[in-house]
Amino acid sequence: MKTLFKNAKILDLDHEQGYYEGFVVVQDSKIIYANQTMPDGEFDNVIDVKGNLLMPGFVNTHAHTPMTLLRGIKDDANLQQWLFENIIPYENKLTNEDIYWGEMLGIAESVRNGITAIEENYFYHTQSICRAIDRSGIRARINVGSKVITDETYNCYQDFKSQYDTITNTTNSDRVNISVFAHSVYSTNEEKFYSILKFAKDYDLPLGIHLSETLKEVGDCTIANNGLTPPAYLEQIGYFDRPCLAAHCVHMDKDDLQILADYDVSVSTCPSSNIKLASGIAPVFAMQNKGINVTIGTDGVASNNCLDMFKEMFLVATLSKVSISDPSVVSAREVLSMATKNGAKAMGLNVGEIKPGKQADLILVNINQPHFYPQENLLSHLVYSARGSDVYFTMVNGKILYQNGTYNIGEDIEEIYKKVNDIRRRLLT
Amino acid sequence: MKTLFKNAKILDLDHEQGYYEGFVVVQDSKIIYANQTMPDGEFDNVIDVKGNLLMPGFVNTHAHTPMTLLRGIKDDANLQQWLFENIIPYENKLTNEDIYWGEMLGIAESVRNGITAIEENYFYHTQSICRAIDRSGIRARINVGSKVITDETYNCYQDFKSQYDTITNTTNSDRVNISVFAHSVYSTNEEKFYSILKFAKDYDLPLGIHLSETLKEVGDCTIANNGLTPPAYLEQIGYFDRPCLAAHCVHMDKDDLQILADYDVSVSTCPSSNIKLASGIAPVFAMQNKGINVTIGTDGVASNNCLDMFKEMFLVATLSKVSISDPSVVSAREVLSMATKNGAKAMGLNVGEIKPGKQADLILVNINQPHFYPQENLLSHLVYSARGSDVYFTMVNGKILYQNGTYNIGEDIEEIYKKVNDIRRRLLT
Repeated sequence: MKTLFKNAKILDLDHEQGYYEGFVVVQDSKIIYANQTMPDGEFDNVIDVKGNLLMPGFVNTHAHTPMTLLRGIKDDANLQQWLFENIIPYENKLTNEDIYWGEMLGIAESVRNGITAIEENYFYHTQSICRAIDRSGIRARINVGSKVITDETYNCYQDFKSQYDTITNTTNSDRVNISVFAHSVYSTNEEKFYSILKFAKDYDLPLGIHLSETLKEVGDCTIANNGLTPPAYLEQIGYFDRPCLAAHCVHMDKDDLQILADYDVSVSTCPSSNIKLASGIAPVFAMQNKGINVTIGTDGVASNNCLDMFKEMFLVATLSKVSISDPSVVSAREVLSMATKNGAKAMGLNVGEIKPGKQADLILVNINQPHFYPQENLLSHLVYSARGSDVYFTMVNGKILYQNGTYNIGEDIEEIYKKVNDIRRRLLT
Repeated sequence: MKTLFKNAKILDLDHEQGYYEGFVVVQDSKIIYANQTMPDGEFDNVIDVKGNLLMPGFVNTHAHTPMTLLRGIKDDANLQQWLFENIIPYENKLTNEDIYWGEMLGIAESVRNGITAIEENYFYHTQSICRAIDRSGIRARINVGSKVITDETYNCYQDFKSQYDTITNTTNSDRVNISVFAHSVYSTNEEKFYSILKFAKDYDLPLGIHLSETLKEVGDCTIANNGLTPPAYLEQIGYFDRPCLAAHCVHMDKDDLQILADYDVSVSTCPSSNIKLASGIAPVFAMQNKGINVTIGTDGVASNNCLDMFKEMFLVATLSKVSISDPSVVSAREVLSMATKNGAKAMGLNVGEIKPGKQADLILVNINQPHFYPQENLLSHLVYSARGSDVYFTMVNGKILYQNGTYNIGEDIEEIYKKVNDIRRRLLT
């Protein structure tokens, strides 16, 4: 199966103006051609892009997808209140079946907004998550993760092994890989950390964690660990000896950032969640200066409250500027890189750029709308003016999952809407 | 002409859940009925809203609409650099005809995103602005305003009289009213201020100004005026003795806010512009505490870079939270009020609520999309999850200006696109 995209503006951040006009060929699940000149040969399918933008799909490096079920259920609370007094009690009521539909709603929203790969940080009802990811066609790195609240009988290694087996037994796809996630320093004691590390080593898997998200987390960790900040503590226990993707990283001093740089830890910055929960603004410009691989995540919609990487890109650029009173830092081009190829690097995926040999995770953006005019400086418009709704076509691994209002994710969209409304109603009674 | 809206969720911020299910009747340019029960009578037109949301159009209290022509022309610069070294030199090249098409593009973007009324703060080529506003059908308060750069021969009073005559001669509509605008304390000397005040008094008009937008503005004013901050200086010269709408108000201490409260000055907060130019974050929660009427503006797209009040609402709520490390402040309900009825109050308009007797400035929001599910806590979804593209129908003064991709603003949208691209190309050569 060979598809030709023609009449396209093709995003290429290595190019001086950030894109070129040309042609792309996808064969099965891969990009085999991307160039300014028309390729030879026959094609099964020709897509006329009509001067619109063809770009790599977004790589969302921090998501708790089934939490779509809790969208807007509790606003105006800080992380501790929000998580322990509101979110976890609701989560405890969710069934296997509920999680499947929540994951499906999140996948629908993701592909509608041009997200083609997600770092899935949800560890309850793993089988449902895997079923939805497998069925829908989206790309994901699924995390084997530690529960926030556990009792004395909890055996972390065993739980991880069971999640791991579920993932490998339920998904049968080159779209899925696996990572290991410790929830946070505030919910993981040293014994648990060591079993997580042993598991990651035994199965040769990379790591992730929520890191330095709030001042409370940093303060509590420092008091409990003889002055060690969360990154310093993790360094000491060897958490950074394997490849690692750390989410949030809001409250970091220069020593903390140096640790991340020294160990080549990637960061997933989640600006909308951080400002809505009033956690703070991550020092993205300082991270860049240290040479850290910065990527972008939406976080779960219970805190942020939607899955729109355009919104997050706008926030990464503008919050970076205002937080250090310098409008010249963190350009549109840099932010687009964070949302695509930096994310791919962090998650170990062969996506994020339109180059021959990359997997075909592609989206089309309708730039024939008022907010893209005048049509000059397209990179600027993408970061400061565009929004998820501008995406009208989403392809993952060579398969079209969304096109002009139609979802092709294995479940009917109206059925998804009905199910999640029913679940919400039940949760609130 | 009588139109019935049926099967609607009708936004009403006085209602406990923020909306009710019911019916609205528009006769000519006014709302004559809004209730849960079906009205009697015959209708010329029946619009089935299919369970979607009917809400008042957004009131954008700070816009420089023709600056759409300069969208993305200069990112990553601070206000002084951006304005004096980049924007003004380009503006000097713009013709009467250019401004007409720039205004039209901004109006197209506005109605597409559900903005039904704009405070128009652009003072060059007034006739073109008036022609576009008059022709398009949008509602506007057009400002008679002072030029930023003037020479010694500039007669402010005469210029204002000429702009005023242009507005009254070119527009012939109950959709247009007039205000008087001094650009800022940093571009207006005392003599100019006194002629502006005399003009406003002679013509009995309200006032506006850019106020305390940057630390530089506050510092320079304080040094030049014996320690008076911009609000204190304006109070001293009598600028607040008439009704006033002040844009930005980013750098304000409690004494400054007290002055605004004492004189009932409304504030137009413009968060995206303020963070992109790294000017700062306005103290919106402190304004609310002082009882100040807070409203929302987009500012011009040369700095922000688009006209989407949903984006601004999200930013007002979340930046307020993060800037004082308190997620409980500035709720979705409060922000929706700022973007509608508070704006109407500030601009002296009989709009902003769906109540009998109000002008029919109404929009329909498509809530049958993933990011509105589960469909519970609609106010939260509107502020934290929605975007301008969710609007599919925009009515101003009883006339439909946008519906499902079709613009009804007196010019063909493709012609507008072509014109603004040509103008941009010319500007850059």
